[in-house]
Amino acid sequence: MTSGEYGPENGLLVPRFAGRSTFARIPEIDRVPDYDVAILGVPFDGGTSYRPGARFGPQAVRQASRHLRPAYHVELGCSPLEETRVADAGDVAANPFSIDEAMAAIERQAAIVGQGSRRIIAIGGDHTIALPMLRAVARKHGPVALIHFDAHLDTWDTYFSAPVTHGTIFRRAFEEGLLLEERSIHAGIRGPIYGPNDLIEDRQMGFRTIRATDLPIIGISAAIEAIRERVGEAPVYLSVDIDVLDPAFAPGTGTPEVGGLASRELLQLLRGLKGLGIVGCDVVEVAPAYDHAEITALAAATVVFEMIALFWQGSR
Amino acid sequence: MTSGEYGPENGLLVPRFAGRSTFARIPEIDRVPDYDVAILGVPFDGGTSYRPGARFGPQAVRQASRHLRPAYHVELGCSPLEETRVADAGDVAANPFSIDEAMAAIERQAAIVGQGSRRIIAIGGDHTIALPMLRAVARKHGPVALIHFDAHLDTWDTYFSAPVTHGTIFRRAFEEGLLLEERSIHAGIRGPIYGPNDLIEDRQMGFRTIRATDLPIIGISAAIEAIRERVGEAPVYLSVDIDVLDPAFAPGTGTPEVGGLASRELLQLLRGLKGLGIVGCDVVEVAPAYDHAEITALAAATVVFEMIALFWQGSR
Amino acid sequence: MTSGEYGPENGLLVPRFAGRSTFARIPEIDRVPDYDVAILGVPFDGGTSYRPGARFGPQAVRQASRHLRPAYHVELGCSPLEETRVADAGDVAANPFSIDEAMAAIERQAAIVGQGSRRIIAIGGDHTIALPMLRAVARKHGPVALIHFDAHLDTWDTYFSAPVTHGTIFRRAFEEGLLLEERSIHAGIRGPIYGPNDLIEDRQMGFRTIRATDLPIIGISAAIEAIRERVGEAPVYLSVDIDVLDPAFAPGTGTPEVGGLASRELLQLLRGLKGLGIVGCDVVEVAPAYDHAEITALAAATVVFEMIALFWQGSR
Amino acid sequence: MTSGEYGPENGLLVPRFAGRSTFARIPEIDRVPDYDVAILGVPFDGGTSYRPGARFGPQAVRQASRHLRPAYHVELGCSPLEETRVADAGDVAANPFSIDEAMAAIERQAAIVGQGSRRIIAIGGDHTIALPMLRAVARKHGPVALIHFDAHLDTWDTYFSAPVTHGTIFRRAFEEGLLLEERSIHAGIRGPIYGPNDLIEDRQMGFRTIRATDLPIIGISAAIEAIRERVGEAPVYLSVDIDVLDPAFAPGTGTPEVGGLASRELLQLLRGLKGLGIVGCDVVEVAPAYDHAEITALAAATVVFEMIALFWQGSR
Amino acid sequence: MTSGEYGPENGLLVPRFAGRSTFARIPEIDRVPDYDVAILGVPFDGGTSYRPGARFGPQAVRQASRHLRPAYHVELGCSPLEETRVADAGDVAANPFSIDEAMAAIERQAAIVGQGSRRIIAIGGDHTIALPMLRAVARKHGPVALIHFDAHLDTWDTYFSAPVTHGTIFRRAFEEGLLLEERSIHAGIRGPIYGPNDLIEDRQMGFRTIRATDLPIIGISAAIEAIRERVGEAPVYLSVDIDVLDPAFAPGTGTPEVGGLASRELLQLLRGLKGLGIVGCDVVEVAPAYDHAEITALAAATVVFEMIALFWQGSR
Amino acid sequence: MTSGEYGPENGLLVPRFAGRSTFARIPEIDRVPDYDVAILGVPFDGGTSYRPGARFGPQAVRQASRHLRPAYHVELGCSPLEETRVADAGDVAANPFSIDEAMAAIERQAAIVGQGSRRIIAIGGDHTIALPMLRAVARKHGPVALIHFDAHLDTWDTYFSAPVTHGTIFRRAFEEGLLLEERSIHAGIRGPIYGPNDLIEDRQMGFRTIRATDLPIIGISAAIEAIRERVGEAPVYLSVDIDVLDPAFAPGTGTPEVGGLASRELLQLLRGLKGLGIVGCDVVEVAPAYDHAEITALAAATVVFEMIALFWQGSR
Repeated sequence: MTSGEYGPENGLLVPRFAGRSTFARIPEIDRVPDYDVAILGVPFDGGTSYRPGARFGPQAVRQASRHLRPAYHVELGCSPLEETRVADAGDVAANPFSIDEAMAAIERQAAIVGQGSRRIIAIGGDHTIALPMLRAVARKHGPVALIHFDAHLDTWDTYFSAPVTHGTIFRRAFEEGLLLEERSIHAGIRGPIYGPNDLIEDRQMGFRTIRATDLPIIGISAAIEAIRERVGEAPVYLSVDIDVLDPAFAPGTGTPEVGGLASRELLQLLRGLKGLGIVGCDVVEVAPAYDHAEITALAAATVVFEMIALFWQGSR
Repeated sequence: MTSGEYGPENGLLVPRFAGRSTFARIPEIDRVPDYDVAILGVPFDGGTSYRPGARFGPQAVRQASRHLRPAYHVELGCSPLEETRVADAGDVAANPFSIDEAMAAIERQAAIVGQGSRRIIAIGGDHTIALPMLRAVARKHGPVALIHFDAHLDTWDTYFSAPVTHGTIFRRAFEEGLLLEERSIHAGIRGPIYGPNDLIEDRQMGFRTIRATDLPIIGISAAIEAIRERVGEAPVYLSVDIDVLDPAFAPGTGTPEVGGLASRELLQLLRGLKGLGIVGCDVVEVAPAYDHAEITALAAATVVFEMIALFWQGSR
Repeated sequence: MTSGEYGPENGLLVPRFAGRSTFARIPEIDRVPDYDVAILGVPFDGGTSYRPGARFGPQAVRQASRHLRPAYHVELGCSPLEETRVADAGDVAANPFSIDEAMAAIERQAAIVGQGSRRIIAIGGDHTIALPMLRAVARKHGPVALIHFDAHLDTWDTYFSAPVTHGTIFRRAFEEGLLLEERSIHAGIRGPIYGPNDLIEDRQMGFRTIRATDLPIIGISAAIEAIRERVGEAPVYLSVDIDVLDPAFAPGTGTPEVGGLASRELLQLLRGLKGLGIVGCDVVEVAPAYDHAEITALAAATVVFEMIALFWQGSR
Repeated sequence: MTSGEYGPENGLLVPRFAGRSTFARIPEIDRVPDYDVAILGVPFDGGTSYRPGARFGPQAVRQASRHLRPAYHVELGCSPLEETRVADAGDVAANPFSIDEAMAAIERQAAIVGQGSRRIIAIGGDHTIALPMLRAVARKHGPVALIHFDAHLDTWDTYFSAPVTHGTIFRRAFEEGLLLEERSIHAGIRGPIYGPNDLIEDRQMGFRTIRATDLPIIGISAAIEAIRERVGEAPVYLSVDIDVLDPAFAPGTGTPEVGGLASRELLQLLRGLKGLGIVGCDVVEVAPAYDHAEITALAAATVVFEMIALFWQGSR
Repeated sequence: MTSGEYGPENGLLVPRFAGRSTFARIPEIDRVPDYDVAILGVPFDGGTSYRPGARFGPQAVRQASRHLRPAYHVELGCSPLEETRVADAGDVAANPFSIDEAMAAIERQAAIVGQGSRRIIAIGGDHTIALPMLRAVARKHGPVALIHFDAHLDTWDTYFSAPVTHGTIFRRAFEEGLLLEERSIHAGIRGPIYGPNDLIEDRQMGFRTIRATDLPIIGISAAIEAIRERVGEAPVYLSVDIDVLDPAFAPGTGTPEVGGLASRELLQLLRGLKGLGIVGCDVVEVAPAYDHAEITALAAATVVFEMIALFWQGSR
Repeated sequence: MTSGEYGPENGLLVPRFAGRSTFARIPEIDRVPDYDVAILGVPFDGGTSYRPGARFGPQAVRQASRHLRPAYHVELGCSPLEETRVADAGDVAANPFSIDEAMAAIERQAAIVGQGSRRIIAIGGDHTIALPMLRAVARKHGPVALIHFDAHLDTWDTYFSAPVTHGTIFRRAFEEGLLLEERSIHAGIRGPIYGPNDLIEDRQMGFRTIRATDLPIIGISAAIEAIRERVGEAPVYLSVDIDVLDPAFAPGTGTPEVGGLASRELLQLLRGLKGLGIVGCDVVEVAPAYDHAEITALAAATVVFEMIALFWQGSR
């Protein structure tokens, strides 16, 4: 690939197991004049409550993205990597020993990379990184609607007296006014919680929830409709915790929860978001040390590809 | 946790990766004055016909139970570990070299731990352990209805001339009069069998069967209805062989069979049993050496949590 | 087992973890007077574009076939290994360093093993091996209808200027006139492609496609109907790339693609083919180095067992 | 390979990942007119006290033996598979549920396979299988000297009141008079024991011991000298528990013990036995579920190859 | 085991894969009247610079300690678990989100558990935990000599401006006056460093070093002599970073370094410390997510057993 | 790092798990004005006879090189990445389907990257890639001395009639006159061979051999002396097949052979080469699918670091 060109390296000329190590082998950010979408690695897992290791997520997702033949998206009918200028923005150098410093560094970098009309897809790292991403996004767009795929609500208050962890970020976002009232929604939630109050408070923060067990009952289409209705015309931040998938589909994560979604369901749900006003995204909680045969990282890489296509669809 | 208190250690004070190694970090049986439900490890795999290793099942399930935030069960609307007094009864010291001695030791220990109105959830071990559990239960309650989730019927006659193995225990239970006539049911059965006679004999022993392939056709609700109708008001023994799940969801087991249930389906089925008169339970055939990222053990731990909730529901 | 006998070794006399290493412990081809169906290992992976290792597929599938209790097939109501004379034909000695020589050796061996009315089920190896199999089959039966389960179309033109690779064989088969016009169908296809032209050309070669995302919408029965209608009375070659399954169900493969089928779905689809005029089969792309706990190999072994049953059904 | 021929399949014509699944791809016992050495699989692990799974040892060792280029042994200067007639005798069908029946079946099969001047190398299985092997050998040769490579003495009395387990067989052998007085030796022993009495009793049974920690101090040559001197001209049974290797070299075993031998050391020690009157051998305790990348099974397969060479050397 | 008794559960009555989950199945601290040595889990890995996960170390080491037959130590000629009163003190509830709070909690707990003449062996956790251990020890004993087995010096200054991490603790200890001048020694050091100054400063802090490459040259005995001479009669803190072993022997660690010690060498070195005035110990950096077949955890458990024996030897 | 700067990213500012994916995070070749040494990935494994997958070697070695703190080399007393200008030259786009085309592409790229006085360290890929590397090197320097660390001679003639495979390249190199007469040496050789002729022919091609079993007998220093004497003042090509290490140290390789070197031994041998006239290097046969916890890739990355240091030493 010549410097200045966009798009992935040509898989018919350079084998996919060769060539550069960026997401989908697209160019690095400083090799192109400008870009519409940046893929930003955020290797921080200091907010993890159970199995750590999501700091290796960005590398693993990039490596798994070699599997993609990332040209034409059949279901959405577009070639997002050709029609959108996408660049790999590298990794934020987040301090592994200080949540506060890491949050600041991530927000700072997100602000720089996402300047103007540029969009970011962040690859975590644990879910903590969604908070600085939301801060950066809200600074530009004002409060946003949140579409949140996850096994967990992540609206707990504190954990070990720490206010910013991977289980508390959306409460912080709510408190900071980063989220639009009555426009946010969780999908895929399941598993035991600390108490019924968790649900009540979550609802008071303006969230609605599609539980994992609701999905086979209401069906994918109704779920999509519920999400679309919820967010309406608002600017949307899309956050995908890979543990929304069942551990069978995503073993490589820190707090797996059985009874989750199949990857086909998640892809169908994501494709149902086309045309929404998505202004920022993240895919988080890939912990490669627990992955097998790259299946979790591949699921996450595919989600990133869907997100790029959604940006393209949203921008038309 | 102070001695004498019930319930799991507080995950907000003691990280889940720390603290005691009991199921869900609940107290050991000798640290509480009394209990309603006991979790009993039965590390015996001497009845295994193919991949051994379920002797490490109790440890693995306990370890995976650290993943649980075992407080409020949203779907069943209860906090079973707070509202029920649950204790970890440790492991039966079953002789690994003698099926007969092991059976006797398990039955003996089950009788002691399950005295009076106390209930046991046994964590296997291979499925052989269901026989002494049934013996202990039937001695107290008389013959019981069996709800049996499994890929296999386990009503074969002998294997290598051994009458008590993980594939023959329900025939033995039938012969010993431990099971109610026409009240028992298998669910999740699949895979080739030795001959059509296997099915005929199984039916003659009074079993009905919901095959794994029936489930997507009749739907979860109808399956639940069929099970509830089958067992009616009878005292129920609930036995879950983890291989009822597809190998994708439960690779860590001795005789995996493709075409199985998703974990979400199993959880839905289990929750459908609420209010039934369950008097004993087991979860068996977790073979950790074949597991990956604890997904099988976590599925089993979640099943145990569901069973505790069912006891609570059943006891109301 | 006495020489000259058919069928698997008796699992009640010889434990399944012992005894011969053929598929399902059936006799080797030179130990029986004749056979109806031969299982032929084709350990060649020189046409692999990404993760190699399918050369170890035949061994792994045979080893996993020890899990089978291969007697009575409940859903299809037959005992295929008793009612059909099945033999293990060993492995083709395919040159690992030359695609051309390997293709010739495979075709030659397939012609010999498949003489007369005998049928072959080939265990790959990568998907490249389907081309010489089709050549051998078409030489006997003329052009055939292709039923093709896969995540990928495999009708690309060349890859690195190589005409015969695991992604191009069905285009070659079409060009060579091995396939009947308008009688072939892909099922399970998904993932991004190089461009919309891929689909157009595929259609021009006479293929129809059931995408993985179509399945939950149209349902299994309608999918079966579509396939049956497509192939009609034609002689059928059935090719199953194990990556038609989701990576959760088949991690051990070279080019996994998320959003795939559950193993239960695949089995249901295969059973729906009963009575069709199947004249040859393959199961390909099991790469054991990426497998876990044999789940991919077990899925493939089960597919082989279904194919044997289909031959029996088709021959009635 | 034509029926009746000896030696492995030609690796230059049939790739090592193809072809038959016998040890080193040598012929099966019923395909050759006669043989000097038989490789006998003994897939029994019912005597295992900790991690089970050695029942899969014979298959794993045969599979790993494909790695061998088993022609010319440089250090011993011979081509044992060409100069000796070696056959794969398949597996003993040992009852997995009864130690007694299994012992009887193994001894019976060993007697048949080892008739006349024929020699057996048994592939376990757990160490329990050494007892029936010794019984069969002693019946022919009278009491033998034992050269025993292991981390453990295996001369304990009973375990859970079972007299025959993988930790007690050499005491049983001593009691039964299968061992020559003052001619036996353990090498590689290490790890804590139940009490000092273990050592005293072991010595009273006539064993001498080279501990693992002795080796780097006295050196390999002195160790070889000590072993040779100990056994002298006696008929020798050579038993290699793969856990004599450090877990780094042999993770795939049931009772690993740190501080063990490097594989190079073990090979040097074995080669030092050349010319001794070895009349029977076993390699035991390969538990493939705990192996990685076949390294344990490959070590065991290499030991079997060394044993064949020793038979050839001894027979000159 | 009756409450109040010391020593491990009897492995001849309760299989080692059953029974309690404490280190070597010894009693928990609150079940015995008093103790000489406490095993204290310190599941903290917030100071890790590369692969995290040592928070699961204490559980993994306890689980692996089931492998031990922890009675008689042949080389040291003692039965440490019978002759010393050892108890498992459970885990420190260290805050995973704050290094400072965690350090305080560890020191506090170490002070309580180590009161009077009681000794602690801490199981990490990452190496950061050695600092609060040293603080607690030095408060009682004054400055100590440090015997430090590790691949790395751990005397760097700061990392990402954090003063207390797993690579900086011994510089902090030096600055705080916790270490005796000219009495401390590193052994096993290897790998590239940031600059030659690292070595100079380390020496200025009073350390001497036996590099991993020195060992085969000078020999184990000379190395032991050097260590003994260095520490003399001083009170000694013994810290073993499991990465002192080569990655072949200890893959399950956060910052592996090739060219390390064999486990046999480490055991020999440790046994050479007998009689020294050891007042505190730790074993750190076991990261189970990277372990295989428990070999790293087993090495660490064996080191703990050696330490208990050293305490017994030292106390005579 | 600013464009144009040399050396790795600063590990104290950018965590090693973040930042660019080049070898040791050094700059890519087109970001620096010039360089002395280039690291060239050669992801080709089409010449593999057994376990494939070395095509993923370059990525794996680069990823493992993040473990390095690649500044000061204590034993060689230099900071090679600061004192030498090293760049990552990316990967050769070698055709995976044609050995001939791949050989040509590799040689072409090596010629370009290695122009003038620039040196290359190639990361394989399988050993086949050493042939085009030697061709490129010999075109510049004339015939070279070969120092070859490997378990295997790699001087076989053909395999399946293919002249260029990973087991035949040094015979081809000899025939093509790329090697100096009587200046080449193998070290680490072991395992059975096809016949004694293999050794004779190897010797006739001018090789000498230090077998793996020789090493503990003659000692490392004598081995170094033998190598140095052999090559003398000649220009040297240094080729390290990672399988020279024992499978315990390097499981992730295609044709492992037990009885190999410890990683410490290999490092000592390599450091003994300092001052020799090394003009080209490769590290080959890392097959990550068989690796565990990156230990093989880390060993290879460390070897690359040693080679850089040797270049620096050689250039003084």
